[in-house]
Amino acid sequence: MARQRDLQDGGEFQSPALERLVRGLSRLPGLGRKSATRIALHLVAKESPALELATAMAEARAQVTNCSRCGAITEPDPCRICTSVHRNAELLCVVATPVDVLPFEKAGFYRGRYFVLGGLLSPLDGVRADDLPFDRLIRRIDEDGVREMVMALDASVEGETTALYLQRLVADRDLRMTRLATGIPVGGALAYTDEITLQRAYQFRRSCDS
Amino acid sequence: MARQRDLQDGGEFQSPALERLVRGLSRLPGLGRKSATRIALHLVAKESPALELATAMAEARAQVTNCSRCGAITEPDPCRICTSVHRNAELLCVVATPVDVLPFEKAGFYRGRYFVLGGLLSPLDGVRADDLPFDRLIRRIDEDGVREMVMALDASVEGETTALYLQRLVADRDLRMTRLATGIPVGGALAYTDEITLQRAYQFRRSCDS
Repeated sequence: MARQRDLQDGGEFQSPALERLVRGLSRLPGLGRKSATRIALHLVAKESPALELATAMAEARAQVTNCSRCGAITEPDPCRICTSVHRNAELLCVVATPVDVLPFEKAGFYRGRYFVLGGLLSPLDGVRADDLPFDRLIRRIDEDGVREMVMALDASVEGETTALYLQRLVADRDLRMTRLATGIPVGGALAYTDEITLQRAYQFRRSCDS
Repeated sequence: MARQRDLQDGGEFQSPALERLVRGLSRLPGLGRKSATRIALHLVAKESPALELATAMAEARAQVTNCSRCGAITEPDPCRICTSVHRNAELLCVVATPVDVLPFEKAGFYRGRYFVLGGLLSPLDGVRADDLPFDRLIRRIDEDGVREMVMALDASVEGETTALYLQRLVADRDLRMTRLATGIPVGGALAYTDEITLQRAYQFRRSCDS
């Protein structure tokens, strides 16, 4: 009984503020209660980076925005990719979310521009064509004189549906439509490749000459 | 060249604020650059908990303190354990750091009080007896009429050295000195137990009757 009361009074940490911090941290992606506790204790210790981090969070929240032209995560608007004279305006990569731009830019091989749909068609979830900015995409294709549109969408039902819809939407334009190759990941072990990926990799097998 | 310049201009994210946030997060214990990026992107998204979390951090930093009597992490000072009439003042658990109190309180079986040394004797690192609050500990023992002192210190050279020093320090007092048992962790697999733990577990084996 006494123990019960003590715990209720003090909480696990004898500090409501610490408890609130742990709860907030454990709601972040990839953090459980244990890692959140470890981080929180680090943040309340002497010489902790808590204040710098709190500032960095608030600043990022205030300054980071989405490019009004392509939808990518950026600070200047329009983003540096949309305004760069070194990026090929005739090559447009269509992705579902702003985060999908990052692996391309990290790899650094892609020299075109992007268009972020902000989602995928999903009749079951109530996402219809009217909900996605297809009219802005068409305008962008026409304005920039896009010659090739790379569809870099998820290999899911929603991704396939959206790709199909896009294909029909631009069917009357002089535009090359491409999509990312499906297959075994580089460095991936054949034994641990799922059946569908393996089937696709076989289906789209290339001649060894090419 | 062009790519180089673009990357320098924009950074990986086209946003210095986001880059700063990722760097700050990846310095937290247990977070690498990848998990930090994942969390940062979550924090700059719409409806993100960034501002609540920033507030929680600043508040915890400002409000959480160490108990002036025992050194535990707490918000009221002295802490609820030191002031609780339900805790046995004659039983004192000596730990190295404020964090060491947490597993005891979480388990909830311990009904005594604590004393946080704030470190362990370590001649090699230059931590001598003068650097640790042994005089405050002795005063506490005398004031509270402590009858048993449980040494819950790390099973390291520093922990052993400190325990030995403490033993000699209170040798002339009528005080039972105890320490935590060393052995196989409950639920631990014998095959994966390290040699020293196994040796200790054998050395301190108990009769099955007890």
